[in-house]
Amino acid sequence: MNQISTVLEQAVSELSRLPGIGRKTALRLVLHLAQQDKAIIHQLADGIRHLATDLKICSQCYAYSDQEICNICENPMRDSSTLCIIESVRDLFAIEETQTYRGKYHVLGGLISPLDGIGPEKLNIQSLFDKITGGNVAEIILAIRPTIEGETTAYYIHKNLPVSSVKMTMLARGVSFGSELEYADELTLTRSMANRTTYQIYDNATR
Amino acid sequence: MNQISTVLEQAVSELSRLPGIGRKTALRLVLHLAQQDKAIIHQLADGIRHLATDLKICSQCYAYSDQEICNICENPMRDSSTLCIIESVRDLFAIEETQTYRGKYHVLGGLISPLDGIGPEKLNIQSLFDKITGGNVAEIILAIRPTIEGETTAYYIHKNLPVSSVKMTMLARGVSFGSELEYADELTLTRSMANRTTYQIYDNATR
Repeated sequence: MNQISTVLEQAVSELSRLPGIGRKTALRLVLHLAQQDKAIIHQLADGIRHLATDLKICSQCYAYSDQEICNICENPMRDSSTLCIIESVRDLFAIEETQTYRGKYHVLGGLISPLDGIGPEKLNIQSLFDKITGGNVAEIILAIRPTIEGETTAYYIHKNLPVSSVKMTMLARGVSFGSELEYADELTLTRSMANRTTYQIYDNATR
Repeated sequence: MNQISTVLEQAVSELSRLPGIGRKTALRLVLHLAQQDKAIIHQLADGIRHLATDLKICSQCYAYSDQEICNICENPMRDSSTLCIIESVRDLFAIEETQTYRGKYHVLGGLISPLDGIGPEKLNIQSLFDKITGGNVAEIILAIRPTIEGETTAYYIHKNLPVSSVKMTMLARGVSFGSELEYADELTLTRSMANRTTYQIYDNATR
């Protein structure tokens, strides 16, 4: 490979650094690209380069943004009194895709993990507390994954909440839609049983 | 997605044009990239951009190259009297990986396919004949996939060979019908190269 073209080799080795892309896939992508119009190659290169040059982090919620303040934080139609606390921007996309949440977000940038040396001071937690202290926040929803790190982070936020009147909720835990009961773990099943809800019919109106 | 960041959206939509990369994978790659050092993002963008700006096509064998003539064509250790005829550069990589072939290559740039409007004049076939007419070629090895288009192309080359003394061989059958050279394992490719046979026309009687 090396002896054929360093230009190809360079592109392959850069692409194969991406998660889930091995050398063989990278080579396939590069040979595909090499056959495309130059304009298309430049567009892809520019799209990637702009991630380094033009992508900002919202000064209010810490999500990615094109401006100083992101579109969601700036949107007067979004309810500022509800904050959804998430680990990363990835979760924001997942929740936005449901098109059901109308509040705002606060991206922690990770979860507390003492074993990895990640304490609360390395996350956007103080700024969350500042927001809450500033008043105006009625509810924070912890949309954090149910792992040891997630529960540690949730517990830390709960314990250190500067204003006690703020309602703190978490995503319902349960058996996920479409999954087999048989494969649900015991803890999930136990909690789902304990937190069982009244039978509801989901139609298009309530969805 | 659109409302969150056009910079992200642009990168996602460019990446998802690549084969085998859907929007969800593209988003995962983009969010991964956004968290990397800017230098790494620039390296990837440059690696891709150079495919448009710095990648050349070898004037002798039509493979990709960094210079006017590729490293293989320029290498005096490679046997110029043996030409391996391949459909695309992809196949060159596959054969080079076996590390058993010491001759040179000739990339056709496709296969004859009347249904798709691809005649011999759209491929690098005349230049192959010119090379053969120029003397010095003792053997051409048809390393072309065994599909209808492949066999049509092989037959065309056989019928129009300008010098009858040239030995025309083909990869030993061992590569299963309809499969891509690229995905054949190294052993199969190595054996197919070692057991190459004299070109034969398969008609319905001998098949």
